[in-house]
Order: sequence, then C-alpha cells, then structure tokens
Amino acid sequence: MAADGFTRIALGVEYKGSRYRGWQRQASGVLTVQETLEKALSIVADSPVDLMCAGRTDAGVHACGQVVHFDTRAVRSMKAWTMGANINLPHDISVTWAQEMPSNFHARFKAIARRYRYVIYNDQIRPAHLGEEITWNHRPLDVDRMAQAAEYLVGTHDFSAFRAGQCQAKSPIKQMHHVRVSRHGKMIVLDIRANAFLHHMVRNIAGVLMTIGAGERPVEWMREVLESRERRSGGVTAHPYGLYLVQVEYRDEFPLPERYIGPHFLTGFDTLPG
Amino acid sequence: MAADGFTRIALGVEYKGSRYRGWQRQASGVLTVQETLEKALSIVADSPVDLMCAGRTDAGVHACGQVVHFDTRAVRSMKAWTMGANINLPHDISVTWAQEMPSNFHARFKAIARRYRYVIYNDQIRPAHLGEEITWNHRPLDVDRMAQAAEYLVGTHDFSAFRAGQCQAKSPIKQMHHVRVSRHGKMIVLDIRANAFLHHMVRNIAGVLMTIGAGERPVEWMREVLESRERRSGGVTAHPYGLYLVQVEYRDEFPLPERYIGPHFLTGFDTLPG
Repeated sequence: MAADGFTRIALGVEYKGSRYRGWQRQASGVLTVQETLEKALSIVADSPVDLMCAGRTDAGVHACGQVVHFDTRAVRSMKAWTMGANINLPHDISVTWAQEMPSNFHARFKAIARRYRYVIYNDQIRPAHLGEEITWNHRPLDVDRMAQAAEYLVGTHDFSAFRAGQCQAKSPIKQMHHVRVSRHGKMIVLDIRANAFLHHMVRNIAGVLMTIGAGERPVEWMREVLESRERRSGGVTAHPYGLYLVQVEYRDEFPLPERYIGPHFLTGFDTLPG
Repeated sequence: MAADGFTRIALGVEYKGSRYRGWQRQASGVLTVQETLEKALSIVADSPVDLMCAGRTDAGVHACGQVVHFDTRAVRSMKAWTMGANINLPHDISVTWAQEMPSNFHARFKAIARRYRYVIYNDQIRPAHLGEEITWNHRPLDVDRMAQAAEYLVGTHDFSAFRAGQCQAKSPIKQMHHVRVSRHGKMIVLDIRANAFLHHMVRNIAGVLMTIGAGERPVEWMREVLESRERRSGGVTAHPYGLYLVQVEYRDEFPLPERYIGPHFLTGFDTLPG
C-alpha cells in the first residue's frame, strides 16, 4: 500500500463486445464495458472506481486478455475483487484475476506490446453458430498468400494506410512484432502483435489480407498499401465481431498472472507457443 | 423423381438452439426450428413443405449435423434449395447441403446412429464468451474418472435411469456405441454415439459424469445408476446449452455428403477420426 493509503490494483478482464459500444465510457445511456465494470467494482469497493485500460477496444470488439488498473482505499483480498466483481457483472464480462501492483504500474503507459487475434470462418455456407464471435467470409481464402502479404507489415513502419480518420494517436509509426496467419479447418486466425495499434488498424489489415487471400489483389498489394500511407488505398474495414484483444505485455518488473492466449473456443491454441 | 411427381429431398441443417423451443413445431406463437425452416423452404418451393427430422432436439439444444427430409413437386437444383433456404433463414439456422434421395429414405426411421457432443468449459472463472454455446462447470473435473465411468454405458442397456418422465420412446433399451471424454485446455468434450437416444438421455449422462468428475461420487456410481433403471438415482439434468447433435448416420445405400464433425468452434476436432 502506498503512503497515501491508496492501493493500485490490476485486473485481467474478458468480455464479449457485441452488446457494448466499445470500452470507453460515454454519455449516459450508452452501454460501455468501462462503465459496466466500474459499477460492479464500485459495489465491491463501496466507493467509486475509475478504470484505466491497456487497449480501448471499439464497439463490438471482444477481449480475453484486457488489462486494467485502478486505485482504491478499500482493503479487499484479490479473490474478493475477482469474485465480487463477477457476481455483480453481466454474463458477457468477467474478471479473470486481480493483483496488487506498485504505484508506478500503469495498464496503458507501461504496456510494451498488445496482441490481437482476428478469427475468420471460411466456408461457402453461412455458419449458424458464433454469429457474433467470428467473421464469416464465403470466398475460399488462400492462407499462404495471406501469410506472404502479412510479412510486409513486420518491423517498424508508418501505418497511416491502416489508420481510421478519427484516430487520436500522436504518431502513425508502430513496431509490428508478428502477423501470423494460420488455418484450422474452416477457421482462419490472424495473430498480430505490435507495441501499439492505431484506431481500426487490425481490422483494416484484416480487410486487406482477406482481399489478397481471395485472389482479388496480388500479394504485393499489401506493400503498395503500406507504402502509400493513405487510408483510401486499402480495402474495407473488416467487421468488429471477429476481433479479440488477447494479450497485453509488460516489462519483467511488472509480472502478471499467466493466462492462456484466447479466445478459448479456439481449442488447442492455448498450448501454442507465445 | 418418383412416379407420383414427388421428389424426396434430404438436407443437412445446423442451428444455434438458444432462441428456439426445440425442433418440433408447436402451437402458434412458439418459436421452433422446424417451423422456421419449413417457412423458409416453402418460399423456395412456392408451396407448403413438411419436414421430418432425424433427431428432435429439445429447447436450447444446438445442432451441426441434423438431417431432415421432405417431399415436393417443386423442381429446384440442390444449390437452389441450399442457398434459397439460407437467404430466407435467420442468422442462427443454416442449410449445409441438399441431396435428392430415393423414396424409401427416411431421415428418422432409416437412421442407424446418432452422435451428440456435450461441451463443458471447466474453469473457476465464469467465461464471458460462449454463454449460450457451452456449459460452465467451475469445479475441477477429472477427465480420467469421467472416461472410466463412461465405459459402463457402452453396449446394449436399459437406459431408464437416464430417461425423462415425458419420454415417448417405445423401449428404454438402446445400443451405446461409444462415450468418449476428452479435455482440450479448459474445454471438456463428451462424444456420445448410440443407435438412438431417450429424452434427456445425453444431458442426464452428462450430469452424472460431471458429478463423478468433481469427485462427489465414485466412478462405480455410474454403474449403480444405470442398473437401478430409476431416473431418481441419477443427478441433475445438465444444461441444454452445451449439447450439439453433431451427426446422423445411415446405411451405405443412402450415401450423404461428408461433413466435418462439429461444432466448428472446436478447432481441430474436424480432423479427428470418426
């Protein structure tokens, strides 16, 4: 506990984003993950809780590895924060762990990497299941072409071509650690890790990759789009329902509980190497 | 086409059962899969369609391998039946294939085996995802104990102990081909194949298996329950949301299109041997 009587607590959070207008609290009457989670935690703390998150997910976007933090004078066990929050949360938001942190920890500013997964169901027939959890693409997608195109993104680049107009980031230059494309039966998973992301960046990358995978554009189109630094060069923004914030990483000075890399319906993925 | 001008058509159907009061058509105002699918097919046929299904799933129960048939004088390509139905169906029902069949085919009476999967998410923390697609069990379940207990069920038995009071089957004696229990990360899958099933049979078996897996009862309790032939010997009926009708099998004289064994979110399962 810090000298001022406040304790900094970090939480792991997962949510199904379909019902929410994104993470960030908005005007009253707009359902957001932040407000819903703050309300549940305020009941446990018996005082108002203000949350800071690692990645402000958009409307409809899901998370299985979101990290948040807050400061509180309330003294509770870590189990009480987790279980107490979950009792007061709706079915589509869960707190997966709680941990006391040093006061210099910050969920957003101390994060050194974010990892997203984008899940595509690739079949001619519209799936009856997971309508809000995956993106259906009926065109046969060539995963090898998508993987080749994805390689152009790895490294430090100006990602303006994949940036939404309303993006508030100071710089469009980000460091892309990996963009993996893999097929598992009818599922195709994009696994993308970078130090930080611009607004709509993963969904805009997913849109270009699907266009290339369908054979509508050559593999090299990815490089053209990237180098153009113009949003209008790229394709459509892919649907939010396939997108998951799966992991946030911090330096070793801030060890956090280990979790599998989700979403958990991708059976077997939790045993893949990081 | 038969001499009377009618053609018998079989369809593969998948659905998310959460919104429906089961397969079977009921009084008006009650939403069922049968009525919804018949309406869509009647639009394609431009005449009324009456469906017969292989397995009458309960309220909330899902399917990825349901088989149905109907007779029609309408002449349509198989693609027209599939695509036409899907355009007229809501997001949670899909026709996966259509095939013309000889007039002695019958989706229900010619089926020689049905296969169900029951999907359990086993973790202390309530999952935020797949709230309607899986059954959450927070107690650590021992899959080896569950697999041992399941072996008592294989073979020809009187399954009265797993039969709901409202069951209309003529005989409680069924032939159980296999009951497999496997863990995949936090997911546990029961894979059950029999010539036919009694009402609530899979869910009642799942209830007993989870009780044994949690260590609340010994492995041998399964044999006691089975041999008692008394429904009150067993445990609770497990929730319908984890249950999927994944496959219906017919003799070689009725070859049907091959489909993966779902549900499709169990990545990798489609490549497991049958």
